[in-house]
Amino acid sequence: MKKISDSTIRRMSKYIRSLEQLIEKGVEAVSSDTLAEMDGITAAQVRKDFSFFGAFGKRGFGYNTKTLKKQIENILGLYRTWNVAIVGAGNIGRALTDYAEFKKQGFIIRLIMDKDPAKIGKNIHGLTIEDFNKVNELVKREQIDIAIIAVPADSAQTVADRLVNAGIKAILNFAPRSLKVPSDVAVKYENMAVEMEALSYFLSNRK
Amino acid sequence: MKKISDSTIRRMSKYIRSLEQLIEKGVEAVSSDTLAEMDGITAAQVRKDFSFFGAFGKRGFGYNTKTLKKQIENILGLYRTWNVAIVGAGNIGRALTDYAEFKKQGFIIRLIMDKDPAKIGKNIHGLTIEDFNKVNELVKREQIDIAIIAVPADSAQTVADRLVNAGIKAILNFAPRSLKVPSDVAVKYENMAVEMEALSYFLSNRK
Repeated sequence: MKKISDSTIRRMSKYIRSLEQLIEKGVEAVSSDTLAEMDGITAAQVRKDFSFFGAFGKRGFGYNTKTLKKQIENILGLYRTWNVAIVGAGNIGRALTDYAEFKKQGFIIRLIMDKDPAKIGKNIHGLTIEDFNKVNELVKREQIDIAIIAVPADSAQTVADRLVNAGIKAILNFAPRSLKVPSDVAVKYENMAVEMEALSYFLSNRK
Repeated sequence: MKKISDSTIRRMSKYIRSLEQLIEKGVEAVSSDTLAEMDGITAAQVRKDFSFFGAFGKRGFGYNTKTLKKQIENILGLYRTWNVAIVGAGNIGRALTDYAEFKKQGFIIRLIMDKDPAKIGKNIHGLTIEDFNKVNELVKREQIDIAIIAVPADSAQTVADRLVNAGIKAILNFAPRSLKVPSDVAVKYENMAVEMEALSYFLSNRK
């Protein structure tokens, strides 16, 4: 399979959501035009994205919604579950322990860690907050695949270093900091202010 | 000014974060190469993005970090504050009332609303949860510019309709649903599972 760009992967995730919506409504077949409209892109883009993985659709019939959803999920590795650890039991970290979209897509939160003695031992949505100092042992015990960093910006790199040391190969970073990690580790960034800034841009440039 | 693509706007937000990091370290000038490396893109892309707004840098000197940050903030409309309302006082909605990145970028949470009588009247980070049935009056009173939807998927469209009716022109939607809104209203989507799916793809396709 060809190397797929980050933006194609991101659109794949969007297609899954749109297909879910259609399946819930009982829609069995969908055209690239409809998918394009739902996701605010061109039909040519949709067809180009799908062509990376071979042609799924039939001219004149469109794509079968359930088959297409399953195929995209397989491409993204969503045919299985992933064990997830959260570092940082602040507002965001705590909210993510019970985030419906994670559960639905197979991201199972197995572990939440913090370094604050006042937080360690407390319970959040059925999980006990564990001591981040025991990260190596905990990551091994819970067979963690993906770690989420939800600590303040100035601790993010230290936390990332310790996660890498514990064997973690995939990190989602909520701290507003670019992280340095070895080349065999993937880091993705999540910052909810970024989309707000796009709205700020929109409001500032309206006629 | 030319119309700027969503992905350019998103990169602008990333540049602000990288510049912040450099300014904190006392760095006064930065090359497009360094910015490119920090954001995982090419230097040509950085220069192309900046060319949309006129040339900021001097060949051989690079860009002044503080000036560049200010210029990008001006482009994105971040020279002012925006009044924000959150709909939905669940885990995500509550976490966002105290989200540091919003405050730092000038997004001030003025209002959190819910329809659940058990939640209305309760206090979160200094805000009282208000009754969503009074949305028109509350949006007017607090002069809300941007609304955040943090309700379950099947209520999202209804909430969006009511927000639009109350005069809202910019919406950030955390519910996994594409929303139908009039053409003068902007909607951006936030789904934390999307970046997790990119990590799932990475882990599934490693050698």
